[in-house]
Amino acid sequence: MKLGMIGLGKMGFNLVLNLLEHGHDLVVHDIKPQIADELANKGAVAAASIDDMVCQLTPPRVVWVMLPSGTVLQSVIDQLEVLLDAGDIIIDGGNSHYKESIARAEKLGESGIQLFDAGTSGGMEGAEHGACFMIGGNRERFAEVEGLFSDLAVRSGYLYAGESGSGHFLKMIHNGIEYGMMQSIAEGFELLEKSSYNFNYEDVARLWSSGSVIRGWLMELAQSAFAKDPKLAGIRGVMQSSGEGKWTVQTALDLEVSTPVIALSLLMRYRSLEEDTFHGKVVAALRNEFGGHAVVPGDNSQNIPN
Amino acid sequence: MKLGMIGLGKMGFNLVLNLLEHGHDLVVHDIKPQIADELANKGAVAAASIDDMVCQLTPPRVVWVMLPSGTVLQSVIDQLEVLLDAGDIIIDGGNSHYKESIARAEKLGESGIQLFDAGTSGGMEGAEHGACFMIGGNRERFAEVEGLFSDLAVRSGYLYAGESGSGHFLKMIHNGIEYGMMQSIAEGFELLEKSSYNFNYEDVARLWSSGSVIRGWLMELAQSAFAKDPKLAGIRGVMQSSGEGKWTVQTALDLEVSTPVIALSLLMRYRSLEEDTFHGKVVAALRNEFGGHAVVPGDNSQNIPN
Repeated sequence: MKLGMIGLGKMGFNLVLNLLEHGHDLVVHDIKPQIADELANKGAVAAASIDDMVCQLTPPRVVWVMLPSGTVLQSVIDQLEVLLDAGDIIIDGGNSHYKESIARAEKLGESGIQLFDAGTSGGMEGAEHGACFMIGGNRERFAEVEGLFSDLAVRSGYLYAGESGSGHFLKMIHNGIEYGMMQSIAEGFELLEKSSYNFNYEDVARLWSSGSVIRGWLMELAQSAFAKDPKLAGIRGVMQSSGEGKWTVQTALDLEVSTPVIALSLLMRYRSLEEDTFHGKVVAALRNEFGGHAVVPGDNSQNIPN
Repeated sequence: MKLGMIGLGKMGFNLVLNLLEHGHDLVVHDIKPQIADELANKGAVAAASIDDMVCQLTPPRVVWVMLPSGTVLQSVIDQLEVLLDAGDIIIDGGNSHYKESIARAEKLGESGIQLFDAGTSGGMEGAEHGACFMIGGNRERFAEVEGLFSDLAVRSGYLYAGESGSGHFLKMIHNGIEYGMMQSIAEGFELLEKSSYNFNYEDVARLWSSGSVIRGWLMELAQSAFAKDPKLAGIRGVMQSSGEGKWTVQTALDLEVSTPVIALSLLMRYRSLEEDTFHGKVVAALRNEFGGHAVVPGDNSQNIPN
């Protein structure tokens, strides 16, 4: 099948390789033209602009967008809305908020353009060799693009999840679960590191990847990380996040559902971004006020009592 | 190799099947003689008592105990201490507290008996078809029993972890991680259930087991559970625990290490054991006191204000 791909970052690039491998015809575009050229060397057709890409596709066109959520994505969707015709299909394979996907699907639908929100999991490796997709949108029209997902996914690795938004909703929850699983695994290794034993963490992660109850891809990735750096000495414990965990907790608040471990995992990420905390200062100050307990002086310590 | 197995419950029974399959000679004992007889039909020798078992083994004897931690295990260890000779080996494959394993190894060592603490993971299926073992004890003598573990384990599924206690320490942390991972997975499905979407959870768990970042054995078990009961209508959300999560959190407190998600996962299990909570009554009463907010009446509601 012939389709366009906009956004050739880590995920988009590897999805294109995977699609080419499966015999699809790709017209690709990125704001960095050299990446499109690199894929042109591998069999794709590089498009200099989104307009150029759309011209090279035949209606009903299929355009896959693999872009950071928010303004970048919205700007591309806005351009596509003008350039595409009724009957064309857009697949948003990125991590958009499911409510935005619902709104976009409605707006594009007014022009007869079908949006599928396709949450994509499996990392860069999955994108190239077999990923996992959760897809929302019109059930009938899904048949037109199902072949793409069955080619790109591992066995059983795609699901038509339901109406618009359901794909990105599932992906959001998937990522929320991921936050809790990662924090839990990490706390376990923290305990090993603080114990009096001298474990080899690569060995432990390999063992736990081999027949244990907690085996899974995250433990295999831990093994890989410890193989490269046995004590992770080259990495600071700063835990960035890219939004889906926050959306999961916001959704839990919207629905008034108790999800304490996912919420706490997110809050621990925020904690990790700070060298020191204001709440820590407040607790230390209060202990000093009521009990005269010593405080650890700060940068501007001349004002501290005791 | 010829060895004894004491404790033929879910795990011990399947370990015996696995060992028989690998050509080992088993003398087996359980307080329920019919289970030993059942294994006798499959090639093991049933021993009527621990004494009887020890008599049928040739020094240096190897006795594997697969028993609930605490008094049951201690009583069997005490009997074995008397019956075994210097040079004999005991493998404790259960979930003993690592500090108890250290103490037992020291005491048995005074009689020249070597104790290996062998944490076992992988569930009943693993016990029969390939499990995961983390083993602490004397490094030199480990060579005498390594063949048992290599036969019983999946590939890369056993690790000599270090001195006595290290095997059960690793297993305890493994189980602590398991608590957090399970709670996180479960909270994700809670959000799906409370959303306006109508997901098929078996399909979702199968999808997430297929190429996603959160794939692993626990997600496959979730798929299996949802296949049997799509909304788990036949199960109440009462989350029992058997001790290792509590030990993990106690160890975190001993070591003064921050492990909030594992700790909270344990506390959520305790919460699940109660229909109602006293803290809930206190919060409701305080809201009533300061703001006149309505309370939900309890069993003995005539004393409640408003």
